[in-house]
Amino acid sequence: MAAAAPPPPPTPAPSAPTGLPDSDSTPVGHPLFTRIRLATPLDIPHIHKLIHQMAIFEKLTHLFTATESSLASTLFKSPPFQSFTIFLLEVSAHPFEKDSSFHSQGFTPIERIFNLDHTLIDPEAETFKSGINSDVVVAGFVLFFPNFSTFLGKPGFYVEDLFVRECYRRKGLGKLLLSAVASQAVKMEYGRVEWVVLDWNVNAIKFYEEMGANVLPEWRICRLTGPALEAYRDAI
Amino acid sequence: MAAAAPPPPPTPAPSAPTGLPDSDSTPVGHPLFTRIRLATPLDIPHIHKLIHQMAIFEKLTHLFTATESSLASTLFKSPPFQSFTIFLLEVSAHPFEKDSSFHSQGFTPIERIFNLDHTLIDPEAETFKSGINSDVVVAGFVLFFPNFSTFLGKPGFYVEDLFVRECYRRKGLGKLLLSAVASQAVKMEYGRVEWVVLDWNVNAIKFYEEMGANVLPEWRICRLTGPALEAYRDAI
Repeated sequence: MAAAAPPPPPTPAPSAPTGLPDSDSTPVGHPLFTRIRLATPLDIPHIHKLIHQMAIFEKLTHLFTATESSLASTLFKSPPFQSFTIFLLEVSAHPFEKDSSFHSQGFTPIERIFNLDHTLIDPEAETFKSGINSDVVVAGFVLFFPNFSTFLGKPGFYVEDLFVRECYRRKGLGKLLLSAVASQAVKMEYGRVEWVVLDWNVNAIKFYEEMGANVLPEWRICRLTGPALEAYRDAI
Repeated sequence: MAAAAPPPPPTPAPSAPTGLPDSDSTPVGHPLFTRIRLATPLDIPHIHKLIHQMAIFEKLTHLFTATESSLASTLFKSPPFQSFTIFLLEVSAHPFEKDSSFHSQGFTPIERIFNLDHTLIDPEAETFKSGINSDVVVAGFVLFFPNFSTFLGKPGFYVEDLFVRECYRRKGLGKLLLSAVASQAVKMEYGRVEWVVLDWNVNAIKFYEEMGANVLPEWRICRLTGPALEAYRDAI
């Protein structure tokens, strides 16, 4: 796995376990309109840039070899939730126009309004503009896919990556993205949502535990890759 | 994830990285004929029993809630390798009859002969008999499915479970099963094969490292399940 990006440090502990903003709340101050929708192949350039930013954030650019072309040839090959699936997080200073094209494939976009105490400046707004004539920008993503628990005898979701661009962190958007995956898992009667975290990332661990997750202390990941994997080409 | 079953302690270090028996070797002494093939829905009763034995072995029967029915409703829903996939390990004291039905779906069964120094007694041969009029028995399985590395921009395989029944351990059969997955990953140009191991299981870690895997020390698994997951039912 590449690494679930460490999320922003937690916001002050919410009163409810999920602590998400209320979609019916009246915008006051500086509203940030947010939307989570299924990504499409048209989003690949933005997704590629987000993954690259994540590699920089994690100081793992030496492992970053993905190209738009490699993503295009491997993503969006199955219906959503059956294989690799991406939720895209978009933000705007204005309410989203209704776009019925995003309502297909069994997932209705999630909209939430975050009331900020100051206007947010996005230095990369132009780079991450979503659509031509709009002020909607892509702010983050989560990539996940089904895994399987033989003990439960049913699937779950594995979250490979969760990333929110720097200027949108510490506002609850990472929590919204992860909650969207958890909610989808419950809807599908899946048994688990799992991901990984670096053991020294205490902020991330606290954030995940506040969301209800357990960190499993004893399990270690084994990885066979590169020449060591290639050695199996003629082994069988 | 349920837990990749700790494999048998390693056999003496092989001279080659994969160290698998040669399919052309002449059987001497007490040959054990082995075959790895794709599992089918007809194998579910055996698979269910194997998973249960794995839960007993791992002292995790309190987590074991899978039923034949739950497995039947979630497995074999996609073509092999696109989602949850099971390789079944069969053994016999005699050469396998050719069964062309196992050659479908893009995977040719793998056959190997292991030369043992004594006849092997399988106290559960009747329970795990594969087919009606044969001496073929099911000895183990590996369950795996695609995962995705955003950094590599391509899929890999995640090995959820690897299990060999007790009387067949310490003969190289676990290595054969895992090698079959690695070989399939290389064939499909996948970038990684990953699984997990318990940090105190030094025999398993040594075995995996001898197979070329790295154990990643810093990553920890986060799991959201049970009531903590259910809390997200109405969160979005």
